[in-house]
Amino acid sequence: MAEFELIQRYFAQLTPPREDVPLGIGDDCALLRLPDGYELATTTDTLVAGVHFFDDVAPETLGHKALAVNLSDLASMGAEAAWVTLALTLDRTDAAWLQAFSRGFATLAAEFNVQLVGGDTTQGPLAIGVTAFGFLPAGQALKRSTAEVGDLVCVTGSLGDAALALRALQGDLRAKPFLRDLRHRLESPQPRLAAGQSLRGLAHAAIDLSDGLISDLGHILKQSRVGVTLQLADLPLSPQLQSYLQSDDDFVLPLAGGDDYELCVTVPPAKLRQAQQRVADLTVIGQIDAEPGMRLQRQDGSLLEQQLTGYEHFA
Amino acid sequence: MAEFELIQRYFAQLTPPREDVPLGIGDDCALLRLPDGYELATTTDTLVAGVHFFDDVAPETLGHKALAVNLSDLASMGAEAAWVTLALTLDRTDAAWLQAFSRGFATLAAEFNVQLVGGDTTQGPLAIGVTAFGFLPAGQALKRSTAEVGDLVCVTGSLGDAALALRALQGDLRAKPFLRDLRHRLESPQPRLAAGQSLRGLAHAAIDLSDGLISDLGHILKQSRVGVTLQLADLPLSPQLQSYLQSDDDFVLPLAGGDDYELCVTVPPAKLRQAQQRVADLTVIGQIDAEPGMRLQRQDGSLLEQQLTGYEHFA
Repeated sequence: MAEFELIQRYFAQLTPPREDVPLGIGDDCALLRLPDGYELATTTDTLVAGVHFFDDVAPETLGHKALAVNLSDLASMGAEAAWVTLALTLDRTDAAWLQAFSRGFATLAAEFNVQLVGGDTTQGPLAIGVTAFGFLPAGQALKRSTAEVGDLVCVTGSLGDAALALRALQGDLRAKPFLRDLRHRLESPQPRLAAGQSLRGLAHAAIDLSDGLISDLGHILKQSRVGVTLQLADLPLSPQLQSYLQSDDDFVLPLAGGDDYELCVTVPPAKLRQAQQRVADLTVIGQIDAEPGMRLQRQDGSLLEQQLTGYEHFA
Repeated sequence: MAEFELIQRYFAQLTPPREDVPLGIGDDCALLRLPDGYELATTTDTLVAGVHFFDDVAPETLGHKALAVNLSDLASMGAEAAWVTLALTLDRTDAAWLQAFSRGFATLAAEFNVQLVGGDTTQGPLAIGVTAFGFLPAGQALKRSTAEVGDLVCVTGSLGDAALALRALQGDLRAKPFLRDLRHRLESPQPRLAAGQSLRGLAHAAIDLSDGLISDLGHILKQSRVGVTLQLADLPLSPQLQSYLQSDDDFVLPLAGGDDYELCVTVPPAKLRQAQQRVADLTVIGQIDAEPGMRLQRQDGSLLEQQLTGYEHFA
């Protein structure tokens, strides 16, 4: 196991030290200090080879994404990211792979001042377990369960670009021309931490978009016991996705494509202007109502009812 | 994935709720409240099938042990255990297996008032990732790096029993008679949380014994830049292990057997009486000195030098 110990020592120096870490990698536990009056936010995700990624994925991309999806969960609560632990299960020790993986991981960690405080390296089928930690003022977290009737449903950025890039990689010839522009949306998603923090005190509810809008917004609806009417014409689409879509009813990618890692929030109308001042790319796409379920409305007022089940299944 | 969602809902109710958990399973993050002036202690361990356990291990045992090894890390810092997240990678959903696994996990969690606050269920080769969280007054953690020359080296409980049970399970006929008495030491280790907390302010350094005394105490020596002389006759051995050992020089099990999950601490002589009053089964086994390395001394003063390398390799 000497090689594995080497890896652990290597990871110990990977990220910049923070002042609120009295003890990092190398003891039985890491010790972390929260500011008084703050709550800890924590989330854990495991990526398994052959399930969440292909064995031949670029390791730098994988390192970035394993951290990004967890930071995105912190973003959706409105938390500030601070610390992370990495449980790496490796089938073998491949120095080049590890260096590239850790470069992807460390570059993103440095960008958000996140320190790696715990490492566990295990021999076995390739899998990556990340637990991310952040904090936010007590009582100010953006939850899934607190959307209110009348709230405007907003999303950051544009929807469906990652799914379009995936189609291109899977061989969709019509999608191929857009791969160069959109590949980073799939492989190097940027967790919207600043946006999440800016929306504390303004948004009622929030979630990050990992499984697709319908699926993820569905969690807010269910946990808040409300419904929604979405305006299809208002979905924010990149120029590339607009070029790709063939009909006005082709909304599978923006509605059900995963991996966007944008935020979906509900904002009371009186707070919208302030929210949009703080988050420049925040787009209103619908409104929360009391009737359970999700209604997808065309510009002419008609509903896209038939395909909803299909979307849900796809999602 | 409906089955997996079911599992997550099932796990959500598994452990008793704590007042310091404003938000548990079911959102993007869990939210946790630390008392002001306390530090968070966190540790993560992954158990992989075929590496850390056999595929046919009793799932209840596995549930217990996956949590116990992490709580043991909290114990060694002197922390109070509070919360835990579970990242379960399952090759299939087997209701009987899951029920037994979660029973083992939940029984131990309830014993120490630990709440499961996050769950991630993934399809893939069987693996169990646990991240445990506890807290302790700021600055009072028992670390590996703070042993001092003159400190007495002490261990809780008895050493080598889990390794003897393992030998019995592996077919050692001489070990078999002791299996009934010692099997729980291997399969259901009890994290020494109360002992760790009691030793705050008394012990200088601490570690939990997972890989065997020589290996684990070695971490304290290395990180504290000190050495140790251990008195072999003072190693605390159960009556069963004493019956099994054939010669006075047969110390592989207590010195290098893993899975004890007892604590090894260094205590200044002036604090020993108080430490032993608080932790009844605390035994002095040696003393920290300035000369690097580990010396194993027989009762007659001679050293067991030849075998040290062998032990280290075994460990």
